[in-house]
Amino acid sequence: MYLVVFMSQRDDADDGYSAMSDAMVALAEEQAGFLRLESWRDDTGFGCTLSWWDSEEAIAAWKANAKHQTAQRLGRERWYDDFELQVCKVERHYTLADRKQQH
Amino acid sequence: MYLVVFMSQRDDADDGYSAMSDAMVALAEEQAGFLRLESWRDDTGFGCTLSWWDSEEAIAAWKANAKHQTAQRLGRERWYDDFELQVCKVERHYTLADRKQQH
Repeated sequence: MYLVVFMSQRDDADDGYSAMSDAMVALAEEQAGFLRLESWRDDTGFGCTLSWWDSEEAIAAWKANAKHQTAQRLGRERWYDDFELQVCKVERHYTLADRKQQH
Repeated sequence: MYLVVFMSQRDDADDGYSAMSDAMVALAEEQAGFLRLESWRDDTGFGCTLSWWDSEEAIAAWKANAKHQTAQRLGRERWYDDFELQVCKVERHYTLADRKQQH
């Protein structure tokens, strides 16, 4: 399982951002290999989107998606003062239930 | 570089949680190998804390920290209805500046 962490600093104007953001979440959720998405943005415009995928190939296909490419270009040109993207491999994970069994 | 993703569902009562949460952020930032922390929680009580570390050893040492162990126990017993923790290896990353050079 892989995790993509996308951290971004928005500028002040909406300028079509909100509608595109909603559309990209909906489109991501339809992609092969998509597992889960969590997202937030604070009052300063700093935000983080976490998306989980079942393979690196699924991440590459989503990055290359034509509609997503348009959104990425507009993000670079118009919406983001800055961003950072990290591709991570989930090496292990556990839940509260797992821990209660151990203690 | 490694990323720890801690996602949790809080119950309704504060019961000492906020003070402990602030203390644990301050303590984490003092640990050897600590790099960065980002955190948010929404109105439903679902929250996510991302912390970046320079090695798996740094993560293990933080997990074993005595004050942090106390906080973990109280979290399991008192504060969290549920949680999930993921340890991830950051395989690659890029920024807006990197992308503007390519396009």
